[in-house]
Amino acid sequence: MLHRTYDDQVCSVARTLEVLGERWTLLIVRDALLGLTRFDDFRQSLGLARNVLSERLKRLVDAGVLERVEYQQRPSRSEYRLTARGRELALPVVALMHWGDRHLADAAGPPRLTLHRQCASPLHVRLVCEECATPVAAGDLQVVAGPGL
Amino acid sequence: MLHRTYDDQVCSVARTLEVLGERWTLLIVRDALLGLTRFDDFRQSLGLARNVLSERLKRLVDAGVLERVEYQQRPSRSEYRLTARGRELALPVVALMHWGDRHLADAAGPPRLTLHRQCASPLHVRLVCEECATPVAAGDLQVVAGPGL
Repeated sequence: MLHRTYDDQVCSVARTLEVLGERWTLLIVRDALLGLTRFDDFRQSLGLARNVLSERLKRLVDAGVLERVEYQQRPSRSEYRLTARGRELALPVVALMHWGDRHLADAAGPPRLTLHRQCASPLHVRLVCEECATPVAAGDLQVVAGPGL
Repeated sequence: MLHRTYDDQVCSVARTLEVLGERWTLLIVRDALLGLTRFDDFRQSLGLARNVLSERLKRLVDAGVLERVEYQQRPSRSEYRLTARGRELALPVVALMHWGDRHLADAAGPPRLTLHRQCASPLHVRLVCEECATPVAAGDLQVVAGPGL
């Protein structure tokens, strides 16, 4: 990372935001999750200047979230594909989206719906305990010091 | 919101980031979720200049994520408490944290652990379909246009 904004923070939220926290970066990831791969498609979706988009994409490639793949030679053209760790960002991105759906949507309702492909029912992001079979409320979440603190 | 960075984006991720996307803001929310309420405690945790912290807290109060509550008079002292919608941010914050735990932690391991208070087992953030009883993989997530698009 070029800028280390949160240098003193021993925290995985801070480390994640070093990678994703710049303006536009999470929206590039959103677009990639929605299937976009090409520079011009990201640019059109986001209305970003070429140099800004270029720099953001390069950072995401450096961080292993996207990989740049040449899909055509002469002239050379590349696209940006999510890596496995990039695809894992669906979870935090959908969690941020659902929060916005609940609290910031206008009267028309949510701009996008997240459905279970198999049954077309709405999907939710939840805390799950694999030991207990019960649903876990936010108040049942306990955060304790880990080995890396 | 003072700055509308993502004005053209009809998207709940973008709307959420209008509230939370500035540098430090999600770490203030993290600290609030960890139990911090007082200005000086946030300042010590984050190493932020007073004016920056002040401005970020004010925005979070304006957005209904925190509420400012006077806990002492003469001299007047206030603290910042998470609202119900603020507490809901535990989900995206923990999802971002777990991604950092998996991909950005150093050899020592994750700085913090998220446990189920009742059984002390690790909690996970998962996509859940309330219709089907099966776990939902990221590839089973389908995003479609909603009424607000």
